[in-house]
Amino acid sequence: MPRHYSRRQLLQWVGSAGGSAALYQVSVALGLLPLTRSVKAQVVKARGERRSVVLLGAGLCNLAITYELEKAGFDCTIIEASGRIGGRNLTVRSGDVIDEIGQPQKCEFDDAPHLYFNASVARIPAHHHLVLGYCRELGVELEVFITENRHALVQDDNAYCGRPLQMREYVADARGFMSELMSKAIDTRVFDAEFSGEDAERLSAFIRAYGDLDKQGRYKGSDRAGYASGGMTTPAIKKGTLDFSELLKSNFWRRGMHWAEAQDYAAPLMQAVGGNDKIFKAFLPHLKARIVMGAQVQTVTLKEEAVQISYNEDGQRKHITADYCFNSIPANIMNGIPNNFSKNYRGGLASFGRGKLMKIAFQMKERFWERQDIYGGISWTNQPIEQIWYPSHGINKQKGIMLGSYAWTNAHSEWFGRMTPQARLDEAIRQGTKVHPNYADYIENGVSVIWHRMNHQLGCTSSLSPEARNKYLKLLQKPEGRHYMVGDQISYQPGWQEGALSAAHHALHEFNTRVQLAKTG
Amino acid sequence: MPRHYSRRQLLQWVGSAGGSAALYQVSVALGLLPLTRSVKAQVVKARGERRSVVLLGAGLCNLAITYELEKAGFDCTIIEASGRIGGRNLTVRSGDVIDEIGQPQKCEFDDAPHLYFNASVARIPAHHHLVLGYCRELGVELEVFITENRHALVQDDNAYCGRPLQMREYVADARGFMSELMSKAIDTRVFDAEFSGEDAERLSAFIRAYGDLDKQGRYKGSDRAGYASGGMTTPAIKKGTLDFSELLKSNFWRRGMHWAEAQDYAAPLMQAVGGNDKIFKAFLPHLKARIVMGAQVQTVTLKEEAVQISYNEDGQRKHITADYCFNSIPANIMNGIPNNFSKNYRGGLASFGRGKLMKIAFQMKERFWERQDIYGGISWTNQPIEQIWYPSHGINKQKGIMLGSYAWTNAHSEWFGRMTPQARLDEAIRQGTKVHPNYADYIENGVSVIWHRMNHQLGCTSSLSPEARNKYLKLLQKPEGRHYMVGDQISYQPGWQEGALSAAHHALHEFNTRVQLAKTG
Repeated sequence: MPRHYSRRQLLQWVGSAGGSAALYQVSVALGLLPLTRSVKAQVVKARGERRSVVLLGAGLCNLAITYELEKAGFDCTIIEASGRIGGRNLTVRSGDVIDEIGQPQKCEFDDAPHLYFNASVARIPAHHHLVLGYCRELGVELEVFITENRHALVQDDNAYCGRPLQMREYVADARGFMSELMSKAIDTRVFDAEFSGEDAERLSAFIRAYGDLDKQGRYKGSDRAGYASGGMTTPAIKKGTLDFSELLKSNFWRRGMHWAEAQDYAAPLMQAVGGNDKIFKAFLPHLKARIVMGAQVQTVTLKEEAVQISYNEDGQRKHITADYCFNSIPANIMNGIPNNFSKNYRGGLASFGRGKLMKIAFQMKERFWERQDIYGGISWTNQPIEQIWYPSHGINKQKGIMLGSYAWTNAHSEWFGRMTPQARLDEAIRQGTKVHPNYADYIENGVSVIWHRMNHQLGCTSSLSPEARNKYLKLLQKPEGRHYMVGDQISYQPGWQEGALSAAHHALHEFNTRVQLAKTG
Repeated sequence: MPRHYSRRQLLQWVGSAGGSAALYQVSVALGLLPLTRSVKAQVVKARGERRSVVLLGAGLCNLAITYELEKAGFDCTIIEASGRIGGRNLTVRSGDVIDEIGQPQKCEFDDAPHLYFNASVARIPAHHHLVLGYCRELGVELEVFITENRHALVQDDNAYCGRPLQMREYVADARGFMSELMSKAIDTRVFDAEFSGEDAERLSAFIRAYGDLDKQGRYKGSDRAGYASGGMTTPAIKKGTLDFSELLKSNFWRRGMHWAEAQDYAAPLMQAVGGNDKIFKAFLPHLKARIVMGAQVQTVTLKEEAVQISYNEDGQRKHITADYCFNSIPANIMNGIPNNFSKNYRGGLASFGRGKLMKIAFQMKERFWERQDIYGGISWTNQPIEQIWYPSHGINKQKGIMLGSYAWTNAHSEWFGRMTPQARLDEAIRQGTKVHPNYADYIENGVSVIWHRMNHQLGCTSSLSPEARNKYLKLLQKPEGRHYMVGDQISYQPGWQEGALSAAHHALHEFNTRVQLAKTG
């Protein structure tokens, strides 16, 4: 060892074993495709005078753009409205102040490395190549984030008298009931036209395997639901089955049950060890840029060969003129800042709304959920708190930060947003008690992040109708003069770091094309 | 904050919100059940003379028994046949020697904390309370182990020309096809007798949600299969659908597709940070026991009030007599060691077989799988290598240890077991190439652990027919004289650490009852 097989030998072998179709498909589909996992953005080296860049907003997108432009020799200045770098990449820890308009909250968590929560970006899918690539390049350590936990709970006031069920019980029985129905349909020869002979036999076996049915095609419970008892030194006792009609009354099958099937939520997901803010922070030591903090942009003026920005800093109006501008200000906020963009471009900005998300986090004096076999993941409820999250890290430690709510529905965030911070916690406890009756006993303190009430954010993701997206997104992805709109908002992945970094690379590509043309022109 | 709600107030609130049924079910099912996650075994303090214990085998079970007995003041001696402690809890690292009969292998991995593999126990389910409890008590750090990875691959020579598919594509399309068929069955009113009115409407919606069908109940692909392209700064393009008849020809749906649904494999699973041998090693600093290594037991003799063990050490026959004996020698091996057990007890021992498992591990100079979006988890193939595993730890590092095979089928382990170590690696590479065509390019070295050829093990799990289990397991769970059979083999969870620890606690319970009776008698 090592024994080396040449690529040619391998292909010959696959070809002889699987025929030419296999050979072709194997070659193309997998290893012999060029693997483009590099995060290198192609940027022509800066030459001569035209090298000044101003970036509006110190979120992940502009930090990545700065990082790439500085590598190519450009001079960057970042103008940030708020008092912190990172934008919506926000990890909340002991002593942090939540910058909510009119009612800032101080986080009272204990000071310990595992006692934090990611207030916005929380999970990284495996196909988010830019996030993962930068983590690799910049040395950000990653760990697994649990999104689906079959030991977590499903609670719905409309089903099973509101009793919380283990997700695995719900899912196993749903599959069982469904498969039993299909098995009946086969018996009545509904599928005869489509399946015959071996296919029909296989379909029948498939259905039994899918639902864990008995040989007669009946569902009589499954160990997939978890045992009622036993299984260690005494025989396992199966759980009884749920009532299917009750199950259909619940809402979990409409969305939550299929969550981990979705494009962006399929296991495994990842997070940065110690908090996702490690990701944006990993860029900072590499940057030379001046970052002007607490500076609110007042005007954006496109000039013939430059972009002029005016902003307020320490109560004073200041100006900066640069050769290029990258602007990550939320489009709906940018729409209200005086500018001389074209009418069409302004129409694009005006078409953006802003999504409303919220998270409520509690410091728990004991990780009681782990004693209920829940290690990480999400419990679902039909109440306005929507989801309860358990941390994937700090397993087996004494304390933990859990989310008492992660709500995506605008109405729910708005409702909570109108309350005082204390009233939000009380309300989250009241609702959470239906999922975990002894929940409140463990709470030491809590904090809420209502994104549409956060200073300089006023929302968490861009929100755009499909029509507006078709009409405007491509337009906003193109520069207006020497000004580039950037941020996750101009991607098809708003609210995700990968959207922000894709937007960064897209803008750099546009920028690079322009600079190259200028050089050769 | 903290705001405290009394338990009574909470129950009143649940009662008023959900009615008495909810109140009862919530109270019983969840938080107000006593949470018995303590690993404390009740052992009466040793008094007087009767305090010597001999334990045969230095695996996890006997280490835990020793730990508990020493806390109660008993004097323990452990007799271990092999040259290492830990039994089948074996983590293989740089320089380790695999103690295979007749052909020991040396592990050539680089010396780095993340370059290891767990040769047997690899994952800890959330309901394995004793393993998790001891990890907590002894400070073993845990992290998430990825078992199901929807980005991993499914390869079957009998379907799709042997082309490997992403599991998410396979699963999403299988759900889609199945749901579409059900939708047709509903249209033909097969289920009319069972579902009417609202129930029928809900069932119809359930089926559409389950398979991601369109409003007409047709499956036309789903983003659950992953996008073909786009989705970041360009619109997402859906994948085409697989052929269902081909899918039915594959074997994945018979077992692997439902793997993460099973009682012991539902996400999340866990592992010890740095290797699962951290678990048994955590007991060692707490033990006072003398551990006699390389000592093969020759006879086990039950005396009136003692147990006598003879064993070979350094070519010499030695004897030890103790008041009690805990024996974790595999039953099929113990069956061949002269003893004076009752005929029935010997019949029990004789009924045990031994399961055959194997793992083949490669050090890869690059984590090429992560460039294919595979972070941890398992790819499945219908070839004898059965499964390919990717490490859940060391994400984004340069090198990694992956399993080129994890085979559970006796015939496959036997076939590989008859080869030389080098031939096994070559064969694993030949098969693995169908899953990862460029696989061999990355291999630096490899090692195989064929459990039925491992010295003093001769297998990995006990294997017992259901009839033999019914007849004998209860018998072997009872002491024979002052001798207790222990180990995972006397549990319903053979091959699992939880089985070993459950057996430990079961034996301690039996032991405790006896000691208490002796004291009060």
